[in-house]
Amino acid sequence: MSLNYSERMDGIKASEIRELLKLTQKPEIISFAGGLPAPELFPVDTVKEISSEVLKDMGTSALQYGPTEGFEPLREKIAKRMDSVGVKANAKDILVISGSQQGLDFTGKIFLNKDDIVVCESPSYLGALNAFKAYQPKFIEVPTDEYGMNMDKLEDILANNNKVKVIYVIPDFQNPSGRTWSLERRKKLVELANKYNIPIAEDNPYGELRFEGEKLPAIKSFDTEGRVIFLGTFSKTFCPGLRLGWICADDEVLNKYILIKQGADLQASTFSQIIVDRFLTKYDLDEHIEKIKKVYVKRRDLMFKTMEEEFPEGVTFTRPEGGLFTWVTLPEHINARDLAAEAIEKKVAFVPGGSFFPNGGNENTLRINYSNMDEERIVIGVKRIAESIKEMI
Amino acid sequence: MSLNYSERMDGIKASEIRELLKLTQKPEIISFAGGLPAPELFPVDTVKEISSEVLKDMGTSALQYGPTEGFEPLREKIAKRMDSVGVKANAKDILVISGSQQGLDFTGKIFLNKDDIVVCESPSYLGALNAFKAYQPKFIEVPTDEYGMNMDKLEDILANNNKVKVIYVIPDFQNPSGRTWSLERRKKLVELANKYNIPIAEDNPYGELRFEGEKLPAIKSFDTEGRVIFLGTFSKTFCPGLRLGWICADDEVLNKYILIKQGADLQASTFSQIIVDRFLTKYDLDEHIEKIKKVYVKRRDLMFKTMEEEFPEGVTFTRPEGGLFTWVTLPEHINARDLAAEAIEKKVAFVPGGSFFPNGGNENTLRINYSNMDEERIVIGVKRIAESIKEMI
Repeated sequence: MSLNYSERMDGIKASEIRELLKLTQKPEIISFAGGLPAPELFPVDTVKEISSEVLKDMGTSALQYGPTEGFEPLREKIAKRMDSVGVKANAKDILVISGSQQGLDFTGKIFLNKDDIVVCESPSYLGALNAFKAYQPKFIEVPTDEYGMNMDKLEDILANNNKVKVIYVIPDFQNPSGRTWSLERRKKLVELANKYNIPIAEDNPYGELRFEGEKLPAIKSFDTEGRVIFLGTFSKTFCPGLRLGWICADDEVLNKYILIKQGADLQASTFSQIIVDRFLTKYDLDEHIEKIKKVYVKRRDLMFKTMEEEFPEGVTFTRPEGGLFTWVTLPEHINARDLAAEAIEKKVAFVPGGSFFPNGGNENTLRINYSNMDEERIVIGVKRIAESIKEMI
Repeated sequence: MSLNYSERMDGIKASEIRELLKLTQKPEIISFAGGLPAPELFPVDTVKEISSEVLKDMGTSALQYGPTEGFEPLREKIAKRMDSVGVKANAKDILVISGSQQGLDFTGKIFLNKDDIVVCESPSYLGALNAFKAYQPKFIEVPTDEYGMNMDKLEDILANNNKVKVIYVIPDFQNPSGRTWSLERRKKLVELANKYNIPIAEDNPYGELRFEGEKLPAIKSFDTEGRVIFLGTFSKTFCPGLRLGWICADDEVLNKYILIKQGADLQASTFSQIIVDRFLTKYDLDEHIEKIKKVYVKRRDLMFKTMEEEFPEGVTFTRPEGGLFTWVTLPEHINARDLAAEAIEKKVAFVPGGSFFPNGGNENTLRINYSNMDEERIVIGVKRIAESIKEMI
């Protein structure tokens, strides 16, 4: 017996990251694979105190259904936080979602007919590509350099393809490359999107984790026509287990997201929302983020140092000023999937880069996370990967 | 400026229920509109105690990402609870989702191409119809009586339509009609689904709320071919604010749901899952459900009694043995949307029945919830609706 599935299911494969994460739950594995925050930095005691308070003060509403749009005081606070990336927003511009991954799925649902085109960075976030694939689009990858997408190539694509329905970008400490877009490219992207009337999905899970260098305004801050959809999350700055993110967008577009949220799962967890709201009321999230950054920057520096020392000639990697990832390029003849198989034998995990290219190729790349392992394991893990690379050269 | 949305967005409208729920958040409104459980019955103190314990014992894992499939001990306990509806399941047959509404969206995504057919009861759950609409199907409604779908009509439909991709049913205390399928119809449905190779989505949010009469096995319990997808939820038996439900299905199908869950939002809230798991370990959910039922049955009886006394001749309603709703049929010339407008002037809300028929018609029906209002408000509310009906007759 085999059931009849929809056509879209043909294109949907298990995310290599999620599959790897299963392996990496084994404590003996040194994992640079996930985008997992360091759990030892979660404000567990504070969440404990707050959960108790919330249940004491407003337990029945915290456990009841709430509005699809989200818990109003939290929407207000998120709107205010958008200030820090140069976006003036009010509560009505915010939809609370169940992690920003959900915003990617909704973006596909709202904009994509079968065979429409998603324009994305090359490489781009695997989880977004998988979410979009459910809507059967084609992908056009735009070459990127250290300042973001190549704008000439982008204009060329937009001028020559009338089925482009959304431009998907991660301008801050991109997943997987770690790269951050320059101010000029941000402005230029909005200019081109205006010219060709294309919406932009700006995915920003890492922007608040800047260790050094100048903070840049969100692409949304240059949006004069309501075409930029900003996706934010509390997963990297607070904790992912509560599953809370948000969409910031203008009326017309946000209403579509609200409609889709209704049908998809009614609303984000009321309890999670009220916990985060109370945290934002009583505590300083930015102060907490400073603590996280202090740990991550040390891990990043140690990782870079060890990679410089251990990786053989011909291996390069990006040096992001923040975020969770560095992107490694191997000599062309080494396949990172083979390397990953070797490394897992040595109990070290990372994500081969090929999956981040929707149209394939670039098998000599890999993504390495530096936020989740302690310093000792970072050194041991990098050394083991280096050994494997040397064996394959 | 207007953006280009996908075709599917043309068919998606705001749920009348969710819109009404906004109104009904005003404390002066007597609301029979939502399917809201009574918040005064939520085990707030227990959740408080458990949340603290969980954060103390395993705070970092409770706030971290977890596997897409769900928290393993919770999956085990859910599998075991499936026993009570005659389904033998193991943890591997369970996917934890963010409320059972999410399972409806996934069902559409997994089975429906544009113009495929969903066969459903007439009337059927509005939220399911809205979720399916995102995948642009057509609906064929099967007439129902007090024993469930008319099986001759169903067979006629299956024999004459080759694009039927899913049969969607709510066999226990159906939303909105309150009706429960007989044992024979349950068996017959599986027989027909086998014959025509169609999957069945069995949505069961209310089955555990049986006040009287004999408990019936789930349709899933008669499934010998892995074609029944069972959707369960903790929203009506524990609390909806944690947003937790589950899918119980066989390997092949469940794997599709897991893939879709990855792309849609990665996983259900880790914290919510561990809270429910701990509750199921330390406390007896069935005992808690008994408490809920004791209150609901009194409210139901009082509602029936008041409706019998107050509603004029020509108005009929169903008398379910459990669940949250009764379904009222007005004389044909009275439009329930007009009645709703009158009632809201008197500060009473309910959901007009027309929205529960995907192909329209039946505007002289309405759905009334009896779980959310206390006894005093039930009497006042029914009296006011009765007044409005009398004014319109």
